[in-house]
Amino acid sequence: MQIEFLGTGAGSPSKQRNVTSIALKLLEERNAIWLFDVGEATQHQILRTTIRPRKIEKIFITHLHGDHIFGLPGLLSSRSFQGGNEPLTIYGPRGIEDFVKVSLRVSETKLSYPLKFVELTDGGVIFKDKTFTVSCEKLDHKIECFGYRIVEHDHPGELKVEKLKEMNIPSGPVYGQLKAGKTVTLEDGTILDGHDFIGMPQKGRIVAILGDTRKNGNSIKLAHNADVLVHESTFAKGEGRMARNYYHSTSAQAAQIAKTANVGRLLLTHISARYTGRAAYELAYQVRDVFSATRVVNDLDVIDVPFKG
Amino acid sequence: MQIEFLGTGAGSPSKQRNVTSIALKLLEERNAIWLFDVGEATQHQILRTTIRPRKIEKIFITHLHGDHIFGLPGLLSSRSFQGGNEPLTIYGPRGIEDFVKVSLRVSETKLSYPLKFVELTDGGVIFKDKTFTVSCEKLDHKIECFGYRIVEHDHPGELKVEKLKEMNIPSGPVYGQLKAGKTVTLEDGTILDGHDFIGMPQKGRIVAILGDTRKNGNSIKLAHNADVLVHESTFAKGEGRMARNYYHSTSAQAAQIAKTANVGRLLLTHISARYTGRAAYELAYQVRDVFSATRVVNDLDVIDVPFKG
Ligand SMILES: [Zn+2]
Ligand SMILES: [Zn+2]
Repeated sequence: MQIEFLGTGAGSPSKQRNVTSIALKLLEERNAIWLFDVGEATQHQILRTTIRPRKIEKIFITHLHGDHIFGLPGLLSSRSFQGGNEPLTIYGPRGIEDFVKVSLRVSETKLSYPLKFVELTDGGVIFKDKTFTVSCEKLDHKIECFGYRIVEHDHPGELKVEKLKEMNIPSGPVYGQLKAGKTVTLEDGTILDGHDFIGMPQKGRIVAILGDTRKNGNSIKLAHNADVLVHESTFAKGEGRMARNYYHSTSAQAAQIAKTANVGRLLLTHISARYTGRAAYELAYQVRDVFSATRVVNDLDVIDVPFKG
Repeated sequence: MQIEFLGTGAGSPSKQRNVTSIALKLLEERNAIWLFDVGEATQHQILRTTIRPRKIEKIFITHLHGDHIFGLPGLLSSRSFQGGNEPLTIYGPRGIEDFVKVSLRVSETKLSYPLKFVELTDGGVIFKDKTFTVSCEKLDHKIECFGYRIVEHDHPGELKVEKLKEMNIPSGPVYGQLKAGKTVTLEDGTILDGHDFIGMPQKGRIVAILGDTRKNGNSIKLAHNADVLVHESTFAKGEGRMARNYYHSTSAQAAQIAKTANVGRLLLTHISARYTGRAAYELAYQVRDVFSATRVVNDLDVIDVPFKG
């Protein structure tokens, strides 16, 4: 599991940062990429990575401001042009379907794959399968905006096949029963407890990716115990009033959320063009007394999210 | 007058060429920029030029395929964000207004300037003022598509002020009468013929910028005697059948149009990603026996369009 930042700027593209898009790379976990927001020229940024558009399985839109969605029609078209056939689902606030459908209609674009929309109206679980659960909550932005919490299910412990083989227990239905944690009596009377043959379960990872927002309670809920929190930092530590007026956050507010939510790491993005070079990194340094595992990300940064321990 | 190519590729962006947009720079002529098509990331390309979005006065869209319009909402938003106040007019096929308005509505974008649409239904003059006339004609593409002919009005000759001053004729109403070509009798009885005091008139320049198209008669009409013809060349000389099937042109067909229309120069654009490096330049070399003043343009090429003679 990796997070690749395709665009880390706020509002308009600059030479240093493109507008927002974040790729959650789940290649080992499900041979898929999930995108969070698709600002203009996201497909251009993808040309600079190893991401193949056909692998994009789901797209989660936080809100409908242009710098978060104007790259969507082009990306969808190119995914089709490059022969993507697998279905794609787009989650986002009401209006996202209208925007995409009008764009595809006027341009007479016929996609080579089924496109599904899930328009969000409230918080809660929006996707769940064998390996992942995704939930969303409303944030506090000028326009309806959601944050996402991506929870990987715990990996059950592996069956200790080597140990069973050393004991000359041949593979067969017994292995399955032991893996399920059952107690089994063999033909020779030996009693085996499944728990003795199962390794440690591995905690699934949790990533929270929030949209543009003022500091608010739902951010804590989404980020609770997350390995990684991706949070906007449109403003610097001392600019709380500006942040409030423009419905955004300061780096200090993001750090407070990270601390309260007890996350592993805080990644600051949605960086204003007012902060370039050293000034951008300052956004993180300023708040390390509040939450030390904080860093500002740049376009094309790839952040690994390893298993704990 | 200069033509700056912001995107010269076909269909999807590549690392070498962005999708279509062409800037006609009329800074000396009217302190304005006119854009022809706005593919995705046109505003990103503009960041690499000296063009200021607030100077964009008119946008002409040839057709609504995604690679020609998906950059429009982002460009309009950034022009506003950067404080553009001057009105902007968009000309294009039916549907362009719907696309732009839905994009601005769902993203809750309020522009800082008046935006006007002129949807085209047929060929003819679509704009005329003191200095320029623009007309359009339908082309032959899979979707409704227009080409544009931009005609600069002839510059009348300048009044030879120095010559009048040498003759000790004081400035006043007489100067205006002479400039208008009239014959004037001075108080001392001297008779002056205005034509003796007016310099050579300067022919206005003509540029034809066509959208995606098969070879067709309207292209000749639009390009007739133009100083510069900008024509697509999605396919190479020998691929006439492919070009026909995909509603595009070969470089040879573009050259034939240029020759028949008696243009000054032919600029080939809308180059497929199948042609990179030398292979792209071959598109022009192949057809120099038909029309010698042919060249393939690249992203960010600036072509000067000087007065004749
Ligand atoms: Zn926003
Ligand atoms: Zn086209």
